[in-house]
Amino acid sequence: LTFEVTILGASAALPALGRFPTCQILNVNHRYYMIDCGEGAQIQAARFGIKLSRIHSIFISHLHGDHYLGLIGLLGTLSLQGRKRALYLYAPADLADILAAHRKSGGLYLSFELIFKATNTEAPEVLAEDDLLTIYTFPLRHRIPCAGFRFEEKRRGYTLRKDAPLQALSIQQKLALKRGEDIVLEGKTRAFTEFTEPLKKLRTYAYCSDTIFDISLLSELNNVDLLYHEATFTQEYLTRAQETMHTTALQAALLAKEAQVGKLLIGHYSSRYNNLEVLLAEAQGVFPPTALAIEGETFKV
Amino acid sequence: LTFEVTILGASAALPALGRFPTCQILNVNHRYYMIDCGEGAQIQAARFGIKLSRIHSIFISHLHGDHYLGLIGLLGTLSLQGRKRALYLYAPADLADILAAHRKSGGLYLSFELIFKATNTEAPEVLAEDDLLTIYTFPLRHRIPCAGFRFEEKRRGYTLRKDAPLQALSIQQKLALKRGEDIVLEGKTRAFTEFTEPLKKLRTYAYCSDTIFDISLLSELNNVDLLYHEATFTQEYLTRAQETMHTTALQAALLAKEAQVGKLLIGHYSSRYNNLEVLLAEAQGVFPPTALAIEGETFKV
Repeated sequence: LTFEVTILGASAALPALGRFPTCQILNVNHRYYMIDCGEGAQIQAARFGIKLSRIHSIFISHLHGDHYLGLIGLLGTLSLQGRKRALYLYAPADLADILAAHRKSGGLYLSFELIFKATNTEAPEVLAEDDLLTIYTFPLRHRIPCAGFRFEEKRRGYTLRKDAPLQALSIQQKLALKRGEDIVLEGKTRAFTEFTEPLKKLRTYAYCSDTIFDISLLSELNNVDLLYHEATFTQEYLTRAQETMHTTALQAALLAKEAQVGKLLIGHYSSRYNNLEVLLAEAQGVFPPTALAIEGETFKV
Repeated sequence: LTFEVTILGASAALPALGRFPTCQILNVNHRYYMIDCGEGAQIQAARFGIKLSRIHSIFISHLHGDHYLGLIGLLGTLSLQGRKRALYLYAPADLADILAAHRKSGGLYLSFELIFKATNTEAPEVLAEDDLLTIYTFPLRHRIPCAGFRFEEKRRGYTLRKDAPLQALSIQQKLALKRGEDIVLEGKTRAFTEFTEPLKKLRTYAYCSDTIFDISLLSELNNVDLLYHEATFTQEYLTRAQETMHTTALQAALLAKEAQVGKLLIGHYSSRYNNLEVLLAEAQGVFPPTALAIEGETFKV
């Protein structure tokens, strides 16, 4: 099952050096979950061959422009493409008013149903659930209401082992094994584990942008396979990070290490960094399995 | 005096082939007048080295996303840059509600005064005036209220001839000559024309996007030096142009020819055109001094 993240943008607010603001595509079995939607997201999607029609739902962390201003154009383009399928949108409540203003002017026409659910930016909760994922939200501490997201793979039943004696089994028996039920074969009860692969760990992806360094996030991030965490500044600008309620690369790495995540992805780079290696080096000094979120790159969860 | 247009984007609504939606910078004596502001305008400005701080006023033709969705991000960036100087914004009235919704969410903070004036999309009028330009607006016929703009250079007085005997003149006399007043020199009245250059033609730039082919525009476009006119389709798609209230390249050229403009610039290309030469060839067949609006290129008025 595909479970990977493609970066469409990873820059902070000021446009710098051609870098685009935050937007990611989480691809789970070729169903796309878009996370944040900075200005130019649809332009980046076209550039990297991302099919917009595959987008199932969109998650907006907060209403600073570099995280949502690509949304209105994207919705318009989906309509020009003739989308009929409903689209799910999760965002702070005020986004509903913003969308209403754009629709009232006649400039935004939607060809499909937009199902909006306001995120809880005060307390953790289960935000959404479908056949592939359970999606959790949790508050982030930023200058305006802000939420992070955790995408957890759902158990889809057991997988039959290719080397097991499956020829003798009926379809009903195979379905029972997939549900984890023992079966009776030639008068004998046989454990389902004889025929099935051991369960794999369910994969999880967590997304934290924008936020001040916040140790209370550990409970939300514990043991996730891939963590995206903003790292707007290097430790040299710690005071600036605190004032603007952002995180340094060192702090992001500390959090990743304490939470024992599999891998850390950093992004939301301040425009002052021409070369991002200084951010990467700072984080890797504390947590070696760290990578830079780079536009167009894909990371397996 | 510099009087030139730089193209930041010239694509129609659907993002295609990395082309950006409509945005232009009219540079008059290094004061910038931005015309339309499609998504990604600030990204393009950064790419082409356009200093955002030089923007004096912004003109939005209509509220389809490909003509205004870059505005909110641009205003945010100007604020992050610490702009203090007031900014003038001319647009259909509904844009005020849209801006209010973005500001209410806390996502759009302005560090400067934004002076908004609703355009008249029903009748021609003088929209704005400063020491360099008089700016006219006139209705365009599109699916929603829409306005075109004409930027006319203002007479700034006469220029003194370098080869005239200026050494003998007082500052007061020189100022009188610049105002076109005759002076008295050694008891004799001398015509100001002895000392000044002949008046140059005042330059004008007109902008028409989006609109159905509309012959009644001739009175607004008569004799302008440079005309930008949308040419979304080739004549092959005339029916589609009429349905969507757009213009073909042939029609734009006919209008330019009838209005006896100096030069025609076409743009707002449909995403179906990988190669824009077909649009250019169609227009040049009727009106040879036609050019394609291409991102990053600058056209003298």
